[in-house]
Amino acid sequence: MATIHAFERPLRIRFAHCDPAGIVFFPQYLVMVNSLVEDWVSDELGIPYSQLLMKRRTGLPTVSLSCEFTAISRMGDEVLLGLSVERLGQRSIGLQLGCRQGDEERFRMRQVLVCTSLESHRAVDVPPDLRNAIGRFIERHPSRGTP
Amino acid sequence: MATIHAFERPLRIRFAHCDPAGIVFFPQYLVMVNSLVEDWVSDELGIPYSQLLMKRRTGLPTVSLSCEFTAISRMGDEVLLGLSVERLGQRSIGLQLGCRQGDEERFRMRQVLVCTSLESHRAVDVPPDLRNAIGRFIERHPSRGTP
Amino acid sequence: MATIHAFERPLRIRFAHCDPAGIVFFPQYLVMVNSLVEDWVSDELGIPYSQLLMKRRTGLPTVSLSCEFTAISRMGDEVLLGLSVERLGQRSIGLQLGCRQGDEERFRMRQVLVCTSLESHRAVDVPPDLRNAIGRFIERHPSRGTP
Amino acid sequence: MATIHAFERPLRIRFAHCDPAGIVFFPQYLVMVNSLVEDWVSDELGIPYSQLLMKRRTGLPTVSLSCEFTAISRMGDEVLLGLSVERLGQRSIGLQLGCRQGDEERFRMRQVLVCTSLESHRAVDVPPDLRNAIGRFIERHPSRGTP
Repeated sequence: MATIHAFERPLRIRFAHCDPAGIVFFPQYLVMVNSLVEDWVSDELGIPYSQLLMKRRTGLPTVSLSCEFTAISRMGDEVLLGLSVERLGQRSIGLQLGCRQGDEERFRMRQVLVCTSLESHRAVDVPPDLRNAIGRFIERHPSRGTP
Repeated sequence: MATIHAFERPLRIRFAHCDPAGIVFFPQYLVMVNSLVEDWVSDELGIPYSQLLMKRRTGLPTVSLSCEFTAISRMGDEVLLGLSVERLGQRSIGLQLGCRQGDEERFRMRQVLVCTSLESHRAVDVPPDLRNAIGRFIERHPSRGTP
Repeated sequence: MATIHAFERPLRIRFAHCDPAGIVFFPQYLVMVNSLVEDWVSDELGIPYSQLLMKRRTGLPTVSLSCEFTAISRMGDEVLLGLSVERLGQRSIGLQLGCRQGDEERFRMRQVLVCTSLESHRAVDVPPDLRNAIGRFIERHPSRGTP
Repeated sequence: MATIHAFERPLRIRFAHCDPAGIVFFPQYLVMVNSLVEDWVSDELGIPYSQLLMKRRTGLPTVSLSCEFTAISRMGDEVLLGLSVERLGQRSIGLQLGCRQGDEERFRMRQVLVCTSLESHRAVDVPPDLRNAIGRFIERHPSRGTP
């Protein structure tokens, strides 16, 4: 059974995602998931991701991740990518992510992002507007915010 | 002035598309354009691209292309990718493609695809259903079909 | 302190590996590591990876991985990618992988690969020649084979 | 017959370069070629590419390119990537590039790079040290410098 996440977006599996075995090349899942985080920040939290990076010079690099690839995805599959918040720390954000087609889970992942200054590449506090928006997101989706 | 193509799709420029200069890394435009061709075949022509490849074992590799990068695109830009048919040959398809944001052209390209057998990697005739669907597409968009 | 792995290969960090923050985009580490596994199989174990896949139709997809990104890598850095065997199972191979520049660890990862038939995408036994070659590799590097 | 270029580097075609048809996905050729240009600037011209970009804030984006894909490359192929200078302008550099395996040409390309300020993304003169180094390269390989 696949987890239904608090924030989900549809995606079509592309030729460019697939390898000579005809299935998604696993690093491509991480590219997809990175775009999902962008959409979540920009569209769901209401904080334009590109401005966060390029104007405010605040990055959200990954410090750790773990993934399980539970079923294959093939070119042309229409899947859902999903994201829930597992933990909101002082300087970091713990996410649960996944990919499913209907009930079938294709991929699940836990990922920790850390807020950094793009000038120093050092960790900084999660900016207040981002923190507040994540807090409201957790309130709207309580079962996901308290794992 | 940007060309308005017969088939257009919106795209958000992603973090993953951009390079250390903060702008789209040019090979990423070609990945985007490849997905546009997939969508055109599947959604506009009504021939599932993944079945064409994986079941019917007919590929559409690129034999030549030329591009001009006329303005930069940055992370977060919402652009339109577009495609028109320039020429439909016995075994090949000539396309014009582009990327624009409103009136501003970012990128334009000409590309020749050839139909091949994925078993032999040799050129084969454009399959009749694909040929007919492209013919109807050109009829619906005549100014693009006669360059 | 970075782990010195049993099999190491140098790599230059490229423009194409880096993101708008000017550092390696994390999915690119997984692409690098995938090529390291290829080189290990082909060059160290003596079993041409491309033949394993394309002729023998045996794949080595990833079923799980976990990574920690411990320091950033920038364009132009000359790093070492490394691999050790953690566990050799009936149908799977557990690897430890890493990236270092001298003593500084940039990235470490554990990855489980499973042998599959590329026809059915089902798990199959590790082929005898691959099993024997991995066994000899572990013997040559005993501290890595018994974690 | 494949062109033998003034600057050549070996490359192994990787799993990650290849598509579900089992051959190089064409945008991957452009990623390869981009790395070749980096190596040419850093190793042959003696100007560290990463410093040119990140410290001196001078980029070399592509303004136009044209490619012909003349034969397929498969995973495991050991190829040569090559580069010659076609034209050195005030603000731009015209290159000829290619990929061959022995006598067999796989890919050929013409590409125009322009020097830009990474602050303004506007064209600037080719810096004197880069201009001089390219001039000496052309002198060492005269037949390529006068197309």
